[in-house]
Amino acid sequence: MSEERRGTLWRTAGGEKKTPPPVWLMRQAGRYLPEYREARAKAGSFWNLCMNPAAAAAVTLQPVNRFGLDAAILFSDILVIPHALGKRVMFEEGTGPRLEQTFSAEELQRDPAQWREKLSPVYEAMDLVAQRLDRARDLIGFVGGAWTLAVYMAEGEASKDQRAARLWGYRNSQDFKRFLSVICDCVAAHLCAQVAAGANVIQIFDSWAGGLPEKAFHDWVISPTKSIVARVKESCAGVKVIGFPRGATQAGYELYTRETGVDAVSLDTAVPIGRAVETLGGRVALQGNLDPLLLVAGGSAMADEIDRLLAATADVAFIANLGHGVLPETPVEHVAEFVARVRAGR
Amino acid sequence: MSEERRGTLWRTAGGEKKTPPPVWLMRQAGRYLPEYREARAKAGSFWNLCMNPAAAAAVTLQPVNRFGLDAAILFSDILVIPHALGKRVMFEEGTGPRLEQTFSAEELQRDPAQWREKLSPVYEAMDLVAQRLDRARDLIGFVGGAWTLAVYMAEGEASKDQRAARLWGYRNSQDFKRFLSVICDCVAAHLCAQVAAGANVIQIFDSWAGGLPEKAFHDWVISPTKSIVARVKESCAGVKVIGFPRGATQAGYELYTRETGVDAVSLDTAVPIGRAVETLGGRVALQGNLDPLLLVAGGSAMADEIDRLLAATADVAFIANLGHGVLPETPVEHVAEFVARVRAGR
Repeated sequence: MSEERRGTLWRTAGGEKKTPPPVWLMRQAGRYLPEYREARAKAGSFWNLCMNPAAAAAVTLQPVNRFGLDAAILFSDILVIPHALGKRVMFEEGTGPRLEQTFSAEELQRDPAQWREKLSPVYEAMDLVAQRLDRARDLIGFVGGAWTLAVYMAEGEASKDQRAARLWGYRNSQDFKRFLSVICDCVAAHLCAQVAAGANVIQIFDSWAGGLPEKAFHDWVISPTKSIVARVKESCAGVKVIGFPRGATQAGYELYTRETGVDAVSLDTAVPIGRAVETLGGRVALQGNLDPLLLVAGGSAMADEIDRLLAATADVAFIANLGHGVLPETPVEHVAEFVARVRAGR
Repeated sequence: MSEERRGTLWRTAGGEKKTPPPVWLMRQAGRYLPEYREARAKAGSFWNLCMNPAAAAAVTLQPVNRFGLDAAILFSDILVIPHALGKRVMFEEGTGPRLEQTFSAEELQRDPAQWREKLSPVYEAMDLVAQRLDRARDLIGFVGGAWTLAVYMAEGEASKDQRAARLWGYRNSQDFKRFLSVICDCVAAHLCAQVAAGANVIQIFDSWAGGLPEKAFHDWVISPTKSIVARVKESCAGVKVIGFPRGATQAGYELYTRETGVDAVSLDTAVPIGRAVETLGGRVALQGNLDPLLLVAGGSAMADEIDRLLAATADVAFIANLGHGVLPETPVEHVAEFVARVRAGR
């Protein structure tokens, strides 16, 4: 990690309250940007773009250059992990990503040196961004949470009720825990390598944490995340960790912020911000949680909600962001308005 | 409503604590039952089955006869409302239901007498069930929540982020509220007609309540539900109302139980039962919330979770049920085990 990179996101994630708050957006480099669509067309596919260091670095910097955001997040995908573990990942237009095959626990016993080699384009991209991004801005690396990756790896694709992974866990909990544990090894190694290449903040996206029963949430989200964060904190001094257990219950968010060791928590669209400030704000920094569809809608509905978010978080360490990723149909002007309104302090 | 029907579900929904608790399952009449699959094949389609009173009544009674459940829930579908409002509803194997066309607010101005006529097969089915179901058991009517119906009616099909309905609400909130209000009229009338035909308990399924921002949850879930419940309570003395704001946050469940006037609340799979007992149990009866995938998995994972649910709810009015509907792949024996374990008190 660059020793010198200590921007407002890093500071806020560490618990300092900043006014105005730092602002970035999940999936800020993406299809809503004309310059992204151009780069994507040139690369030929989403995956090529992820795996071409120069192109990935260029795309990473696009929204920072356009909007002056406080942080860049490396353009990559959570499915680089199953790729590193040996399965072909397919991104096709109009459908979600799919894996060529699902995994069994045995198949995961792979050599960390092999993982690193397959993921070297990601680290090269991070290194390029680190060289180009000015020191005042933070640089975010990310991974999928172990549970979310397990959902893809057990099902072969996104699944609204995570059927294959849940059934595996219910029917053979020990075997499933071993599976999660190998994923954790790979995830922790991937995070540390991103930090070594220049990231000073990391985010763990557990996009499928919602809907899990209490015990499953504990065993499959809290425990693996705790193990990942512990290893990252041990190996990469100074990095700040943001966790995103999307769709968790309030009790789930409380447990997550108490148990996992994250510095900050990203709140999904449904989390009432006032309640989060009360119950989580004393413990970790908060990030979120404008509905991406409000960013699409714009107008007074968006403006009112931004004002409400800023007012509710005035006394805590807060990072302005969405409750989920930017949608492709988002008007670029609305993103500029969002950033300007956050910066204006209302 | 039958004046004489006062079973354990009705009593528990009204706040009496029963040991063992009453037990029924959402979507208890469905594809996991061989006798259902036979009836379904004979009817030719799901929709035919819904709209044939004799067949719908027979299917309604199947799980009650097989498992001795404490209540029957009429075999029907939440999309009878868009059907009543004039759109063709299509159920095709392998995909979710779809509407032929989406709705605009203007199209909804329809004559209540017309609605009732189009829905008369539903009331005939209810009447047949009421005649055949023994008086010790309760008879449940149901509707979709206004928001959930609006999601289908705006989108034409289920939508993971409810994009069309949310955008409509964000961009033109007054127009969208009028749309919800007309749906509420139809929903309230449909509930009252079900009660008149024999239902003594009703459930409002707001299956798409999850993920909504705080203000949207208030405007699109709480307010319409409050208006529906008030009209039902006014018109149908003695009926008990169960609400199911699936995926709501804890603050959302709290508001729902405080504001809407429901007698009982059905908890989705993610709600930690102990927390629900603490924060909601003093106000309303609780129903739920075994993961339907645990009912598929069976074994000790299912048994342990049932025991945990029963132990946690020992001191409150509780209705044993799932956190969502029974899945088609559920082994029939697991349902029998679930019922037996609840009845055995562990």
